[in-house]
Amino acid sequence: MSAYSDLSAHFDRVAALSNAIGILQWDSDAMMPKGAADTRAESMAFLRVTHHSMITDARIGDWIAAAEADNTLDSWERANVREIARHFDVETALPADLVEASSKAVSKCEMAWRRAREESDFAGLLPYLSEVLRLQREMGRAKGEKLGLSTYDALLNDYEPGGRSERIDALFDDLAGFLPGFTAEVLEAQARRPAVAAPEGPFPVEAQRALGVEMMKVVGFDFERGRLDVSTHPFCGGADHDVRITTRYDEADFTKALMGVLHETGHALYEQGRPKDYIAQPVGQARSMSVHESQSLLMEMQACRSREFIAFAAPRMRHAFGGAGAAWEADALERLYTKVERGFIRVDADEVTYPAHVILRYRLEKALIADAMSLADLPGAWAEGMKELLGVVPPSDRLGCLQDIHWPSGGWGYFPTYTLGAMTAAQLFDAATRANGDVLPGIARGDFRPLLSWLRANVHSKGSLLETDELLTEATGRPLDAEVFKAHLKRRYGTGATLQ
Amino acid sequence: MSAYSDLSAHFDRVAALSNAIGILQWDSDAMMPKGAADTRAESMAFLRVTHHSMITDARIGDWIAAAEADNTLDSWERANVREIARHFDVETALPADLVEASSKAVSKCEMAWRRAREESDFAGLLPYLSEVLRLQREMGRAKGEKLGLSTYDALLNDYEPGGRSERIDALFDDLAGFLPGFTAEVLEAQARRPAVAAPEGPFPVEAQRALGVEMMKVVGFDFERGRLDVSTHPFCGGADHDVRITTRYDEADFTKALMGVLHETGHALYEQGRPKDYIAQPVGQARSMSVHESQSLLMEMQACRSREFIAFAAPRMRHAFGGAGAAWEADALERLYTKVERGFIRVDADEVTYPAHVILRYRLEKALIADAMSLADLPGAWAEGMKELLGVVPPSDRLGCLQDIHWPSGGWGYFPTYTLGAMTAAQLFDAATRANGDVLPGIARGDFRPLLSWLRANVHSKGSLLETDELLTEATGRPLDAEVFKAHLKRRYGTGATLQ
Repeated sequence: MSAYSDLSAHFDRVAALSNAIGILQWDSDAMMPKGAADTRAESMAFLRVTHHSMITDARIGDWIAAAEADNTLDSWERANVREIARHFDVETALPADLVEASSKAVSKCEMAWRRAREESDFAGLLPYLSEVLRLQREMGRAKGEKLGLSTYDALLNDYEPGGRSERIDALFDDLAGFLPGFTAEVLEAQARRPAVAAPEGPFPVEAQRALGVEMMKVVGFDFERGRLDVSTHPFCGGADHDVRITTRYDEADFTKALMGVLHETGHALYEQGRPKDYIAQPVGQARSMSVHESQSLLMEMQACRSREFIAFAAPRMRHAFGGAGAAWEADALERLYTKVERGFIRVDADEVTYPAHVILRYRLEKALIADAMSLADLPGAWAEGMKELLGVVPPSDRLGCLQDIHWPSGGWGYFPTYTLGAMTAAQLFDAATRANGDVLPGIARGDFRPLLSWLRANVHSKGSLLETDELLTEATGRPLDAEVFKAHLKRRYGTGATLQ
Repeated sequence: MSAYSDLSAHFDRVAALSNAIGILQWDSDAMMPKGAADTRAESMAFLRVTHHSMITDARIGDWIAAAEADNTLDSWERANVREIARHFDVETALPADLVEASSKAVSKCEMAWRRAREESDFAGLLPYLSEVLRLQREMGRAKGEKLGLSTYDALLNDYEPGGRSERIDALFDDLAGFLPGFTAEVLEAQARRPAVAAPEGPFPVEAQRALGVEMMKVVGFDFERGRLDVSTHPFCGGADHDVRITTRYDEADFTKALMGVLHETGHALYEQGRPKDYIAQPVGQARSMSVHESQSLLMEMQACRSREFIAFAAPRMRHAFGGAGAAWEADALERLYTKVERGFIRVDADEVTYPAHVILRYRLEKALIADAMSLADLPGAWAEGMKELLGVVPPSDRLGCLQDIHWPSGGWGYFPTYTLGAMTAAQLFDAATRANGDVLPGIARGDFRPLLSWLRANVHSKGSLLETDELLTEATGRPLDAEVFKAHLKRRYGTGATLQ
C-alpha cells in the first residue's frame, strides 16, 4: 500500500461516516418526531466526535508528507492530497478544548437567540453572543497563525477556501456604489407600471408538491439518487448518491415554494454531478460555498426567473392549480417573480436588494472580528448601514440584527459567500449562454440539457480539482468581478427591454 | 468513577451509535432512493464494525468483574451488569474471521435466495444455504461451548435468552397434538355457515393511512415519539424515544394494512414503554423476541380481532371509506378478521394455522443444525411436515421451503419465537382481563388505557430486569404453557359462543 492509497482508504471510511451523519441530519430536520430530540443529539454528538477524531488522526500527517513526495500521482490524486492537507491543517490548528468551548457556547447562544429574536431583546442576547464572538476570534487567530491569514480570513477560509477579504472588499465596494442608485431607479420604474394581480389560492400542498417534482425533473434532478421533502427551513443535504432537498409550502402562495424548490435543486444538481470516481474523497467535494450558492442562484435567479422559463412554466402552473385569468399569464407571473422591494429581512429579499443585506453583514462581522467595533454597538451600526445601503431602517432588532442564526451559531465569515455566489452565478450563466446558443432556447422549451451539460462539464464534475479562481477562469475566461452581475441586473430590471 | 459507572457510560455511547444505526436502517427500508444502496451499505458496514468493536472492547470484561463484586448496586444495576455480561460472553465467543465469513456467506445467500425463490429453484440455493448452515453450526458451537449449551440452544439464545429447545419441544408437541384436529373442526364449522361478503374497494391509501393513524392513537401510540410510514416489508424499528413502524397498503383490501398497523403498534408500544431511566442500557431493552412478538400479537390477535374491538372499529371503518351495507356490519367484519384457512404461506396464515408453520420450521432447523438431516432432503421433509401438521402439500418450493428469508439470512433459532409469542400473548391478555375487569369493556369503547397500563406495569417498564420466565410468572402467576392459548382458540374459533 502506498501512502496515497492509505490516505484514500481512510477518507473512504470518513465518507461512510459523513454520509451517515448527512442522512441523520436530514432526518432531524425533515422526519424526526419532537420527542426524539435529546436522543438524536446524543447520536449526532457521538458521530461528530468520531468524525473529528478520524480527520485529525495522527497518521494523516505522515501519509500526506509521503504522498506529496510521490511523483506517480496524477492531477486528481495530487489535488486530493492538497485538499486533505488543507482540511488537516485547519482541523489540527485548533486545541480540542477550544472546539468544545465553542460548541457549548454556540448551543447556549442559539437557545438565547431564539428567545431574544422572539422578544426583540438584543441586550438579552449580548452576553451569549459576546462569548461566541470571543471564541470565534480565538479560533480564527489559531487557524490564521497556522495558515498565515488574518483572523477574519481564517474564518472565511472554512467556507471559501482561498477567499480573501481584501478582494471581497473591492467587489462589494463596487456593488455598494452601484446598488442604491440602481434600486431607486428600478423602484421608480416599477411604480410607474399598472399594478399586477397575483394568482389567488388556496394552492393545495399536494398540487404544489407535484408541480415542484415536475419542475425538478425538467431541470434535471435525478430522483433515483435523491428526494424532495418538507422542513421548516429549506435545505439541500443527504449523502453521496442520495441528495435530499426540502421546502415548505404556503397554501396561500405557491410561488415561494416553487422557486425555493428550484433554488435547492440548483444545489442538488451540483451534488449529483460531483465526480463519480472521487465522490467520497475530499477532491470530489463541492469547491466552496460561493460556488455552491452560484449553482442554486444560477438555477433560481438566472434560469428560472427568466422570461424564457416563466413562459414555459406558466401554462404548467395554471394546469397544476386549475388557474385562469390575467394573473396566470406569463407576463403577469414574470412581473411577480421579478418584483423588487426594500425590505428588512434578508431571506425575503429579491436579487436586486439582496446584496445590500449581505454587504452590511459582511462589513459588520469583519469589524467585530477585528475588534474595531463593540458588539454592544451592533444595533446602531445595523440601522446606519441599512439606511446607507437600502434606504430603510428596521423598526426593531427582531427585524434587524436579530434576524439571522449565523452569528449565534458560530457561522462568522459565511455571509459574503451569498453575494459572491450571486455574482458567480451571473458570470457562469453568461458564459454558458455564450458557449452554447441553445441554452436559452432550451430553457424556453423546458429542455435544460444544454445548460446542465455545460454546468456538468465546467463546474459539477470538477469537484475541488481546481481552486475557485481557476475554476471560474477556465469556465468563463476571467476571475470573478461584479460586471456581469451588474449587467444582468440592468438587463432584467433596468429601463431596457424588460420594462415596457 | 466506579466500574459500574464506566460500564454504564460506555453503553450510553453504544446506544448513541445503535440509535443512529436504527434510524438509518429505517431510512434504508422506508425512504432511501434506490441509487443510494451502495453508499448506504458502506455507511452501515462502517457503523456496524464500530459497534462491534465497542461491545467487544477489552475493558468491558474488567468492568464487569469489578461491577459484579460491587455490593452497592441496586437490583436494576445488577441486572444491567448481568445483561451486559450475557452479551459480552456471546460476542467475544466468536472469532472475528468467523463473523466475517458468516456475514459474507449470508450476503451471497440472500441474493441467491431472491433468485431461487422467484424460480422455485431449491437446487440453485443449496450450495449457498449449505455454507450459511455450516457457519451457523460453527458459530452455535463456539457460543455453546462458552455458554454450556447445545449448538441449537446457543443460536436460539441470541433471540430468546434462557430459551431451551427441550422446553419448546414439550410446548410445541402439546400444540401439534391439538391443532390438526382443532383446525379440521373449525374449518367444518366455518363451512357450514353462509358465506360473508367482504367490503368492496378501492380503498384509497390516504384513507387507509388516516384510519391506521386513528387506530394507533386509540391503542396508545405516542406520535411525539414515533412515526408511521410505508415499506415493502412491514417492521417496527427506529431508536429510543423514536419508534417507527411501517406498513404497506393494498387499495383492493384495507383489512390487511389495518391489522398490520395494529400488529406493529403492539411492538411499538413495548418500545415506547421501556424503562426511561435505563432506556439506553442493556437492562432497559426488550426482554426477548418471544416477549416482543407477544406484544404485537396481544394487540393484533387478542385485542383487535376481538368481537369487542371490531364492534368499536366497524363504524370507523365505514366512515373512513364511506362504506355501507351488510359487508360493513361488525358481525361480517369479525368473521372476515377471524377466517381460518389452510394455506402454504406462513405470513398469510391466521392465528389457528400459524403455529403449524412455525412448528414445522422449528423441527426442521433443529434437525439441520444437529446434522440429523441433510439439507438436500429439506423439500421432501417440508412436504411431509406440511401434510402432517396442516394437511396440505405445497405444489412448489417457492410456496414451500423457499418462502422465508430467515435461513438464507442467518436467522437460525428465530422461528420458534413467533409461536412462543402467540402463547405468551394469550397468557398475558388473559391475566390482564382477570386483573382488571375493565380491559375488555374498555376495548369495546375504544379505551385501551386499562389494558395498556397493565402492560406498562407488568411487561414494558420491566425491560430486561427479569428473565423471561420470571417476567411471565410475576405477570400471570405461572410460567408459559399452551393451555391459555388453546383455550383462547377454542373460545374464539370453537363451536361455542363465537360461531352461532
